[in-house]
Amino acid sequence: MKFTLLHRDGNARAGIISTDRGEVPTPIFMPVGTQGAVKAIEPRELEEVGARIILGNTYHLYLRPGTKVIEAAGGLHRFSGWDHPILTDSGGYQVFSLSELRDLTEEGVQFKSHLDGSLHLFTPEKVVDIQRSLGSDIMMVLDECTPYPCDEGYAARSGAMTLRWAERCRVHAARTGLPESQSMFAIVQGSVYESLREQSARALTHMEFDGYAIGGLSVGEPEHLMYRMTEVCTAILPAERPRYLMGVGTPENILESIERGVDMFDCVLPTRNGRNAVLFTREGKLNMRNAASAFDFSPPDPGCSCYTCRHFTRAYLRHLFKSREILALQLATIHNLTFYLWLVQSAREAILQDSYAGWKSRVLEGFSAQATEAS
Amino acid sequence: MKFTLLHRDGNARAGIISTDRGEVPTPIFMPVGTQGAVKAIEPRELEEVGARIILGNTYHLYLRPGTKVIEAAGGLHRFSGWDHPILTDSGGYQVFSLSELRDLTEEGVQFKSHLDGSLHLFTPEKVVDIQRSLGSDIMMVLDECTPYPCDEGYAARSGAMTLRWAERCRVHAARTGLPESQSMFAIVQGSVYESLREQSARALTHMEFDGYAIGGLSVGEPEHLMYRMTEVCTAILPAERPRYLMGVGTPENILESIERGVDMFDCVLPTRNGRNAVLFTREGKLNMRNAASAFDFSPPDPGCSCYTCRHFTRAYLRHLFKSREILALQLATIHNLTFYLWLVQSAREAILQDSYAGWKSRVLEGFSAQATEAS
Repeated sequence: MKFTLLHRDGNARAGIISTDRGEVPTPIFMPVGTQGAVKAIEPRELEEVGARIILGNTYHLYLRPGTKVIEAAGGLHRFSGWDHPILTDSGGYQVFSLSELRDLTEEGVQFKSHLDGSLHLFTPEKVVDIQRSLGSDIMMVLDECTPYPCDEGYAARSGAMTLRWAERCRVHAARTGLPESQSMFAIVQGSVYESLREQSARALTHMEFDGYAIGGLSVGEPEHLMYRMTEVCTAILPAERPRYLMGVGTPENILESIERGVDMFDCVLPTRNGRNAVLFTREGKLNMRNAASAFDFSPPDPGCSCYTCRHFTRAYLRHLFKSREILALQLATIHNLTFYLWLVQSAREAILQDSYAGWKSRVLEGFSAQATEAS
Repeated sequence: MKFTLLHRDGNARAGIISTDRGEVPTPIFMPVGTQGAVKAIEPRELEEVGARIILGNTYHLYLRPGTKVIEAAGGLHRFSGWDHPILTDSGGYQVFSLSELRDLTEEGVQFKSHLDGSLHLFTPEKVVDIQRSLGSDIMMVLDECTPYPCDEGYAARSGAMTLRWAERCRVHAARTGLPESQSMFAIVQGSVYESLREQSARALTHMEFDGYAIGGLSVGEPEHLMYRMTEVCTAILPAERPRYLMGVGTPENILESIERGVDMFDCVLPTRNGRNAVLFTREGKLNMRNAASAFDFSPPDPGCSCYTCRHFTRAYLRHLFKSREILALQLATIHNLTFYLWLVQSAREAILQDSYAGWKSRVLEGFSAQATEAS
């Protein structure tokens, strides 16, 4: 993997991540394909909406279908029919949020599967091996994602262990040899404590990873703290490596974080909100179940050129949601992902034209127009 | 609407139904779009799988979103984004199968909505008016679909009333003027009684409808009776009008009925079975949840050229179904509808080549190969 920083506009960056499976323009949003599929959308439609890289979840894929099936298929790309880049998380986040009976030690984290209660151990070395089996283009180190709130003492001890785990991942990858096509990102932790974030970012920078994620945010903390922690990290992280803000976020969050130097994002919001009838539009969120749409034969987002907006009306989408038609989920997902990809593509163009701040203000202003309609 | 009978091979027929919205080659299978959408598939994908005409349900669309919304949208085609032909049923079948509190009189049938318990009356005249609002290319008369078993006395009285209702539909359409683009099919009833079927088919033929459906079959009666009733009807119905066997059926049922002179079919089997993980293949039904597929990286149906079979494996589909991914429903629906449309298209080619009987035997032989795997 190679990262080319093309241009800066303030702290906002436009670049290109080059992988064996294609180039990814940054800033970029990665649709979430938890179980080897982005929910309610086909791989060919992911291409159509502008997705260039998607995310897979190690925790889920390890438990089902399991690495044996995916290895036999020739890796996650061939298994899932997506031959563009894939980033896999380390499974750490899901171990802490989904599984029961977590036993966290220096060695790693033992957990009980949320599917069948079976016991498993994730160590830094093991998650590297699993992600090697998956064949992801970008793999993540194992980390502990601290909850919010989290006292400083715990955050410090956890952050220190996350650093030792990152080093173990790096050493294991070096020792066992990772395919040229696979790169590894570290994850900055430290909860909402500036000094801990700084320590983490510095230490990881010294270890020289291919890229750096900022983890443990968007877990319930106030937005101003998310933005503050983000800028603390990006001020330290090396300019020549991509920065990935994990699990973020709303369109507003993404624009604010791009302004603070973030290059990559992933979030379930566009897909999950879509399935819950909430569409993101240039004029804010639109709840398709609202009666206001019953006789509204305009497109969900008149400024959008996606399949959904070109062919269907608000009235029809409302009918599909009220009637619990699966097509509602498909059309909403197509639109919301198109919107998110449009957002980062447009941000990129604005950065390249040194007009990011003004563009961002205009876009955010537009969002407030229909804010009252959102669910 | 114009029907051109191109060729006969025995009693099997190849033809073309010409409508203002395009030509429909027959024999044809019509995917079922109950609520203004075929479940789990986009209109552009319906075109891709070879659908040329789809079915809409008057009962459902009348209750939700209601004719006012669909009229305001400019008709069902514009509302749903499907600009090829649509056939709408009369709602009779759903009144008897879904609604509560049916009060059947000579005037019509009063029923309570399955959605909100509201009371409604369907008369022959009213269902014509509703279907006029929907703007369907082919509308159906109101009928009573008798259950199975049904004693001969009831079937006779019901069949006689269905004839009177058909005449009322015809008269109402003539009196109020139906757009040139809309045609009307009558429905032969008579349960499993040959003489009643003959009476019904003769009487309706005299009334001169644009096409003729055979209703009240595939409701639980033995298959040999379905086939017998079908051939009794097709022997009487006018050769120069299309014949439509309502709600049928399995691939075997369709091939047997084509051999008996049927031109049109609709059924929820391919879409519903697909959503239940059962795929139709050239080698019989395949339950995608079976463990046998866990490491099977071949396409669901190696002879099929649909999007699903070109890009995905049995192992992946099994994983999607086990993981309850919506994509499973989408991919299975695409395949099953492609299969059904392939079946009728191939039947048509065989008829045109005077080789229907031999082709049918070979296809049916193929189906038995994996029959034991079906759910």
